[in-house]
Amino acid sequence: MGCVQSFRDLCDRPKNTNVRISLPLVCFVWEIAMVILFGFFIRYDEESDVHWQEFRREHNVTSDIENDFYFRYPSFQDVHVMIFVGFGFLMTFLKRYSFGAVGFNFLIAAFGIQWALLVQGWFSSLDYADGKIKIGVENLINADFCVAGCLIAYGALLGKVSPVQLLVLTLFGITLYSIEEYIILFVIHARDAGGSMVIHTFGAYYGLTISWMLYRPNLGQSSRLQCSVYQSDMFAMIGTLFLWMFWPSFNSAVSDHGDGQHRAAINTYLSLASTVLTSVALSSLFQKHGKLDMVHIQNATLAGGVAVGTAAEFMLMPYGSLIVGFICGIVSTLGYIFLTPFLEKHLKIQDTCGIHNLHAMPGVIGGIVGAITAASATESVYGREGLINTFDFKGNFKDVVPSIQGGLQAAGLCVALIFGIGGGILVGCILRLPIWGDPEDDNCFDDHAYWELPEDEESIGPVLEYNNHPIRNKNVAETNFTEQT
Amino acid sequence: MGCVQSFRDLCDRPKNTNVRISLPLVCFVWEIAMVILFGFFIRYDEESDVHWQEFRREHNVTSDIENDFYFRYPSFQDVHVMIFVGFGFLMTFLKRYSFGAVGFNFLIAAFGIQWALLVQGWFSSLDYADGKIKIGVENLINADFCVAGCLIAYGALLGKVSPVQLLVLTLFGITLYSIEEYIILFVIHARDAGGSMVIHTFGAYYGLTISWMLYRPNLGQSSRLQCSVYQSDMFAMIGTLFLWMFWPSFNSAVSDHGDGQHRAAINTYLSLASTVLTSVALSSLFQKHGKLDMVHIQNATLAGGVAVGTAAEFMLMPYGSLIVGFICGIVSTLGYIFLTPFLEKHLKIQDTCGIHNLHAMPGVIGGIVGAITAASATESVYGREGLINTFDFKGNFKDVVPSIQGGLQAAGLCVALIFGIGGGILVGCILRLPIWGDPEDDNCFDDHAYWELPEDEESIGPVLEYNNHPIRNKNVAETNFTEQT
Amino acid sequence: MGCVQSFRDLCDRPKNTNVRISLPLVCFVWEIAMVILFGFFIRYDEESDVHWQEFRREHNVTSDIENDFYFRYPSFQDVHVMIFVGFGFLMTFLKRYSFGAVGFNFLIAAFGIQWALLVQGWFSSLDYADGKIKIGVENLINADFCVAGCLIAYGALLGKVSPVQLLVLTLFGITLYSIEEYIILFVIHARDAGGSMVIHTFGAYYGLTISWMLYRPNLGQSSRLQCSVYQSDMFAMIGTLFLWMFWPSFNSAVSDHGDGQHRAAINTYLSLASTVLTSVALSSLFQKHGKLDMVHIQNATLAGGVAVGTAAEFMLMPYGSLIVGFICGIVSTLGYIFLTPFLEKHLKIQDTCGIHNLHAMPGVIGGIVGAITAASATESVYGREGLINTFDFKGNFKDVVPSIQGGLQAAGLCVALIFGIGGGILVGCILRLPIWGDPEDDNCFDDHAYWELPEDEESIGPVLEYNNHPIRNKNVAETNFTEQT
Repeated sequence: MGCVQSFRDLCDRPKNTNVRISLPLVCFVWEIAMVILFGFFIRYDEESDVHWQEFRREHNVTSDIENDFYFRYPSFQDVHVMIFVGFGFLMTFLKRYSFGAVGFNFLIAAFGIQWALLVQGWFSSLDYADGKIKIGVENLINADFCVAGCLIAYGALLGKVSPVQLLVLTLFGITLYSIEEYIILFVIHARDAGGSMVIHTFGAYYGLTISWMLYRPNLGQSSRLQCSVYQSDMFAMIGTLFLWMFWPSFNSAVSDHGDGQHRAAINTYLSLASTVLTSVALSSLFQKHGKLDMVHIQNATLAGGVAVGTAAEFMLMPYGSLIVGFICGIVSTLGYIFLTPFLEKHLKIQDTCGIHNLHAMPGVIGGIVGAITAASATESVYGREGLINTFDFKGNFKDVVPSIQGGLQAAGLCVALIFGIGGGILVGCILRLPIWGDPEDDNCFDDHAYWELPEDEESIGPVLEYNNHPIRNKNVAETNFTEQT
Repeated sequence: MGCVQSFRDLCDRPKNTNVRISLPLVCFVWEIAMVILFGFFIRYDEESDVHWQEFRREHNVTSDIENDFYFRYPSFQDVHVMIFVGFGFLMTFLKRYSFGAVGFNFLIAAFGIQWALLVQGWFSSLDYADGKIKIGVENLINADFCVAGCLIAYGALLGKVSPVQLLVLTLFGITLYSIEEYIILFVIHARDAGGSMVIHTFGAYYGLTISWMLYRPNLGQSSRLQCSVYQSDMFAMIGTLFLWMFWPSFNSAVSDHGDGQHRAAINTYLSLASTVLTSVALSSLFQKHGKLDMVHIQNATLAGGVAVGTAAEFMLMPYGSLIVGFICGIVSTLGYIFLTPFLEKHLKIQDTCGIHNLHAMPGVIGGIVGAITAASATESVYGREGLINTFDFKGNFKDVVPSIQGGLQAAGLCVALIFGIGGGILVGCILRLPIWGDPEDDNCFDDHAYWELPEDEESIGPVLEYNNHPIRNKNVAETNFTEQT
Repeated sequence: MGCVQSFRDLCDRPKNTNVRISLPLVCFVWEIAMVILFGFFIRYDEESDVHWQEFRREHNVTSDIENDFYFRYPSFQDVHVMIFVGFGFLMTFLKRYSFGAVGFNFLIAAFGIQWALLVQGWFSSLDYADGKIKIGVENLINADFCVAGCLIAYGALLGKVSPVQLLVLTLFGITLYSIEEYIILFVIHARDAGGSMVIHTFGAYYGLTISWMLYRPNLGQSSRLQCSVYQSDMFAMIGTLFLWMFWPSFNSAVSDHGDGQHRAAINTYLSLASTVLTSVALSSLFQKHGKLDMVHIQNATLAGGVAVGTAAEFMLMPYGSLIVGFICGIVSTLGYIFLTPFLEKHLKIQDTCGIHNLHAMPGVIGGIVGAITAASATESVYGREGLINTFDFKGNFKDVVPSIQGGLQAAGLCVALIFGIGGGILVGCILRLPIWGDPEDDNCFDDHAYWELPEDEESIGPVLEYNNHPIRNKNVAETNFTEQT
């Protein structure tokens, strides 16, 4: 009883955003762990190892240009831009949380890619001969993909969590992702080139569930900060455009060499183009006076890239890609207009960036599109060889036929949902512990909590605002905002 | 007579920027048309189709890396960045039209690439065996190029037209471009790797002519908004730099494999470097106190990339590229200082972004440079094989010699001019119809007309400004700015 | 005596930032010189020349895809982005010097790459058969690298020099760099793929020494401008992220085809990821309340990329890369906290961007890491062939062994230091001449000196500020700030 009581006392204390001990501690411990684990486990693969020239001769590789590096590196760099600039700047739309958006995105992505190389490596790149994980450019891409799931989850929590919580969320998120990915791609044998299921569905439900677990009933008080200003919307457009432009690289980055990558890029390009038009149409239609809303332009225009992910390398056909984009622009924009307020009010899910509309629904649509496209694949369209290559009907799976593959795809989608929601409940419980330095409700969406701000922000804007804030003034003497200890 | 009268009445009504019906309608109708037309016409080409492995064996292609995807995809992504971030952000320099700049750029580019795949496809990629257009990565690049023409035209009209007008401008612009391109490249057989004529000359005169048709004599009233602020100039520099850096990819993206792409990139790199120095020199020379003007740095520095477009894949020689850039930096900067005010005052051409200086004059110079370089090509420099490959003296054109090719290049330039001006008159007439929701003169250059703006802009800046505006206050009761219906 | 006296008088005159004569003059003279020198010296190499098809047949090159263009162009474009957007925007953090940061960066980089093609070409790409420099994509990359050294130096001088001084600094910097690079790479035969020594150590000490030569004892008066605002920090993050993301391309751009490029990219990716965590940890640990400082996030997170430059193509091993990044994050952040103030106070080195922490120390660490890694290379890890290829133990250097190579690497580092400091003293003397139009102390860090600014900055902010400035008001009548002539 005493233990429970003291835990409750701990929970009732005013929250303290001072992370001077916890943040450096977590960063150091985890980075040291990375160094040790990399020392034990990670080596270069045969295409990045210095013995490559011998490997070339043994495998009759004609030229250095056939090193996987040249097939994948340009796409890798595009994906890298999406992770760090795309996701980072997309979240800068809040008027006073731009540092946190781009800075914490940077931090957790940099940590996540290291941990992902290890966990994904144990599942998929372990060389049983020497017990080492052998990495090359494809592993770097997969690590970036893995991190994307956690950054999506961050979107739901933006402005309401501490950097330490984000590092914990990432540690577990990467681990869950790697297991889920292994089950979906290798056990179930679903195909998911662009990760509609593996990345977007998982990441979105993981984040939404955590947000539900961390529900803040009185968050409305901070709503004065939960909006954008003109400049912050422009910064967010940088994120939007880099995501939009490079999404064809995202969906094609780990597809099969040759026609696989080529086709995935074309399908994604078309789906995204189509989404823009229906997003704009819906945005204008549902605003009085027909004015466009930047929230829709920044987010819903990307939904087509999410939804075409699974089927991007299939023979979806150009018009099929347009249809997928067409539907997603509508669904996603309607989601922002109707569903996000509904979720917050009735389901207690506070979704700062609206990831339910940008990742969850389009991800599920993508999984379904993938299942239908796979189930309806025919030898007349693909050819016998094409079917085998595209769906990897080889080895243990050489007897699979398209109709069964459709079922496997659907099963994969379910696994992604289960891991997202289940993992979210688990990690949500952990993040509710009162030790992580998360902010009070009225410090949410405010960079003051975790950042030294330039003088303009310190002295002019906020001071006036805070003095006028009724709740804060009550005890302004005791808890000076910038000097909590 | 009654009909004419009622048309005049329509024209005299106060303009209404409410596009709640027209914008969604146009977006939906056109996107549905795209889905249907793509369903009928567009398929994957042999390098993006699932039968690629069979194609490889039949054509003795050694490796997957020889798929055109790996020759062109990195350049494609660079071009894609130029279209969406480059053009989009370059136009954000106006202090209150950044949303319109980057948002409408996004909208019309996303629509334009779809329509371009169709129209260009009918002219150049139609497979007569089955009546289908077969697309691959080169078609995606060409679609981006095609859209560039319309985005250039938007530069002249920035802030003065509605999104519906822009979609109409794009529909016609893409169509005209595709016809013009077919005539120049395939009928006349001019070469134009970087599109100095096909893209820049056409696009610029198309836009300038439309701007002349839509002349607004009283626009001066909005001149308080037709300027930049410090932050908007910085956003514009993002556009400038991405255009500048990736221009070598633009000019080399569809050049011949191997030395063609290689040489085009080098020439463009050099020309652009040279332009920066002469632009800076002229900018400083013509300002009292020698201070630099951001308008010149943002725009004139790019003129060298435009002007080297046609000749980029020729043996222009490195010093030739420097000379082209040298001249264009001077011409373009002088254009901003002297010609733009002259055009507005005496020719009634209101050119918001100064596309006459950045695209029209350098485009024409580029066409002339191309003609001279082609006419002076010799077998001693190119070799017999090099001449044939570079100028494509094959098939019907196997008897063409350099001197004649020079004439063909000049003819191509004339076609681009004719299509630009002629098309501009035609489309200008259409856009003068009073049904497109374009803004009143004093709503020009103002995002309020078509965008829901964040509170900071709604409540503080504009309200004060508008109340002080003499014309607006007269009838402020009747026509509340933000609530026109 | 009279001569010395009149020189002193010249020095004592109030400084005049009017560069209306000098800037255009320098730009024109130097660009004309470039045109002439390019005309005499620069031609396409065999891979960008129109005779490439013949070359291919003679050298049994199977496919166009083996043109060096396809090995290096994607990396080249990434490096290009780092030079123009990365360095340019990284320096925009000052609240009123963003135009100067990104604009002068643009100017000197555009000039520098031309001069670098010549000087580097004379040393490394001269074809003795015809006395011409033959350039291809690798030369473009090396020119960008060469310019990076001067841009690093600009970081120390940001806000305190005129554009003419920067052009002079660049002219000499490129020349010194090219000599130093030749000595280190070809005479001493050190390896330096990512330029830790050649680029970063040289560039940083060159800039720091010049800054020491141009010491301004009363600069504190301008300290009100030597800080950031919220938006300028966000613009700087654009620079940070593009540098961070594309650094793997930087370090791998000119490595050996195949495994060399592949391994260099992996090592850099890992080192940078590790640096982020230790930078964040230290930043939080040393601020009261544990808040993060944007200066560290913007700069220290990049130190790992610098330090892994030399050894990136060696078998550093993934954990080795993490360790390098780990250390540099700590060293660089501590440098910003303790060393920069110390240098300014006690050594009279005013280092605006803290290049000592981002480039100098990590560059030296990189040189040392390279020496150790080379010295400890064994045939059991590399294989005989691998050793020869990686360290280029061929020709005159076929008898070198790893232990000796380690010594050569250390010698290379010393040469970089000597050239940096020696060159800095030389150029510092030149830049102290009172003819270059550098600003008075209280015009430092202010775009007013060299830029026409938009009205918002002219009329509101600065006027108030300047009127309150005690020193300025004294003689405000005589020296109107914006109208010095």
